[in-house]
Amino acid sequence: MNKPVTFDDLEVGFDVPALPGMDEADIQTPCLVLDLDALERNIKKMGDFAKSHGMRHRVHGKMHKSVDVALLQERLGGSCGVCCQKVSEAEVFARGGIKDVLVSNQVTQPEKIDRLARMPKLGARTICCVDDIDNVADLSAAAQKHGTQIECLVEIDVGAGRCGVQFGQPVVDLAKAIEAAPGLKYAGIQAYQGAMQHMDSYEDRKAKTDIAIQQVSDTLDLLKAEGIESDIVGGGGTGSYYFESASGVFNELQCGSYAFMDADYGRILDKDGKRIDQGEWENALFILTSVMSHAKADKAIVDAGLKAQSVDSGLPTIYGRTDVEYVKCSDEHGVVADPKGVLKVNDKLKLVPGHCDPTCNVHDWYVGVRNGKVETLWPVSARGKAY
Amino acid sequence: MNKPVTFDDLEVGFDVPALPGMDEADIQTPCLVLDLDALERNIKKMGDFAKSHGMRHRVHGKMHKSVDVALLQERLGGSCGVCCQKVSEAEVFARGGIKDVLVSNQVTQPEKIDRLARMPKLGARTICCVDDIDNVADLSAAAQKHGTQIECLVEIDVGAGRCGVQFGQPVVDLAKAIEAAPGLKYAGIQAYQGAMQHMDSYEDRKAKTDIAIQQVSDTLDLLKAEGIESDIVGGGGTGSYYFESASGVFNELQCGSYAFMDADYGRILDKDGKRIDQGEWENALFILTSVMSHAKADKAIVDAGLKAQSVDSGLPTIYGRTDVEYVKCSDEHGVVADPKGVLKVNDKLKLVPGHCDPTCNVHDWYVGVRNGKVETLWPVSARGKAY
Repeated sequence: MNKPVTFDDLEVGFDVPALPGMDEADIQTPCLVLDLDALERNIKKMGDFAKSHGMRHRVHGKMHKSVDVALLQERLGGSCGVCCQKVSEAEVFARGGIKDVLVSNQVTQPEKIDRLARMPKLGARTICCVDDIDNVADLSAAAQKHGTQIECLVEIDVGAGRCGVQFGQPVVDLAKAIEAAPGLKYAGIQAYQGAMQHMDSYEDRKAKTDIAIQQVSDTLDLLKAEGIESDIVGGGGTGSYYFESASGVFNELQCGSYAFMDADYGRILDKDGKRIDQGEWENALFILTSVMSHAKADKAIVDAGLKAQSVDSGLPTIYGRTDVEYVKCSDEHGVVADPKGVLKVNDKLKLVPGHCDPTCNVHDWYVGVRNGKVETLWPVSARGKAY
Repeated sequence: MNKPVTFDDLEVGFDVPALPGMDEADIQTPCLVLDLDALERNIKKMGDFAKSHGMRHRVHGKMHKSVDVALLQERLGGSCGVCCQKVSEAEVFARGGIKDVLVSNQVTQPEKIDRLARMPKLGARTICCVDDIDNVADLSAAAQKHGTQIECLVEIDVGAGRCGVQFGQPVVDLAKAIEAAPGLKYAGIQAYQGAMQHMDSYEDRKAKTDIAIQQVSDTLDLLKAEGIESDIVGGGGTGSYYFESASGVFNELQCGSYAFMDADYGRILDKDGKRIDQGEWENALFILTSVMSHAKADKAIVDAGLKAQSVDSGLPTIYGRTDVEYVKCSDEHGVVADPKGVLKVNDKLKLVPGHCDPTCNVHDWYVGVRNGKVETLWPVSARGKAY
């Protein structure tokens, strides 16, 4: 057996936060740490839920941007494929072995359309969203040029107020145009209500989702009357998947954050009024940070600032601690209120990020830990893939 | 002459936003674009200022994280070296050919101290900040182990409320400890007032800087009385460099944002009450974004969201436009209010990011443009270097 690699063996400038086999206590900070047991339980739980409700689960890869996590979701959670938001992300998942990839977004720039049309050659079913008739012609031309097929979902704006056409006839018109376009195939409907996912109240989320479900149901009736079948009726997130699953209208879920959890999502309430991070899902993702200065008695400065996380949805919380609080974030520093002076230099804290998606996107590695040991190091394989 | 490389020649999954020689109009979005003329003017202007005031300028590499920009600042701006915030960043600059590198931060973890102590072997003068007596012993042990020298600045908290000891005797005590420690050399004082840089009013910033200058001056008197010379008295940022330069106390500036500018810094006022991005500095950094959906008449959806920028200091502004406004940011989307419906799908907009530092840190490339052509593609060489 070879001697294990240690940090001393690495060339200067080759920085990884940890190496498999080392003690959790020796991880370099700041970095992302995954509690592998919690992650696996979350993935299995959502997979079991989808299966028991007769739903496919197309996991949202935009959240973790990791081929390894996507493959784990396939293996443990029975996911049917991945959705993501960018062509460059989709390429990473297709190259990583995911066989069914949806770009749950419009692809409109010529160069990106061309890349999307080449994606089936990587062996992946390739799907994108459409909300514009001119886009249909462009997608068709590219698919014909490359001799491939792009499947298209018509995106309905069911309340998120971003992309997507209005429900009803505009969807039928686009579906017909897609069906008539060589190289394209109408594959169904995209109906994700993103604006509602983070509402605290279960009833408020239900009310918004009920509207979306009704709009999709009405649209499906119109489509059926025209003889158009929808293979995919997709939507649903961590704050709503039970509504779509009970609807009898949707058949694919697109949940992402459930696997990792974060502070902002964790605050929303389940049907019993309990935070969803207090039973429904476990915190599996943490930013590990260290105290780097404690020159003031009541204040510790930690090494995770804006370049280790996104604070768009609020500051991180400190996992398992009520005696200290992360109160301020600057580029490379976090200020932790430590009124009793319990922390000292090089102490480590586990932060629950405010918002997991853009936080994962600034890191290069996930450090997977189990039983106090580093078990694995996974690249954030689609990090920065914004095209 | 070889045929120029085009996007079609690139392997699927190899994504760069542009290739040198192409028209600016063909750049893929979202990405960072540098106006090279504006960048060079900013760099030269600050260099000339420092030189005419007898100041050294140690440019802040934490902002751009780019070896190429740092070398340009050396060539055009006469910078004396680089400062940055992390050992992993410092390694990138040292390997890239910068000969004088300050980690303007505490280095406390054993593994990082070890790496810092190896840095002089890359050919760079290696300096870090200290605010803790125990840290002195650790740094000394590592320098001795590697047979190198680490120079140390004592950091004074001159009002930022983060790292650093109080001015006066605590600085003298630390300086003496450093001088007495084998492998270390006392190199001076770090006194950066970060909390004041973004105050709108020139007079408010001056008042805060005056306090800092007085504290540093008093401390230098104490040090001199003990026979301790300070080679570096460093501090100053884009919002204050003229104060430190006029002080007769500081001898090194550490400006970063002046080179790129951003929306938050641009709002602060010069001594005549004019925004600093309206004459003092030019916007040289932009996030190029495209309209990807315009399914609603009064609203365009663009492709630059939270994964293309940091919104910690506010939303981006749209450069050169008053008819449209970036009003909302989600993970991969921006919502642009377009009340008159002037935008169409695939139109491009140049965003001035709210905060340049953490925005640059999510991107892999700078696309340098001049006269409507892509001139260069520079890697964000220390992107993600958070250790």
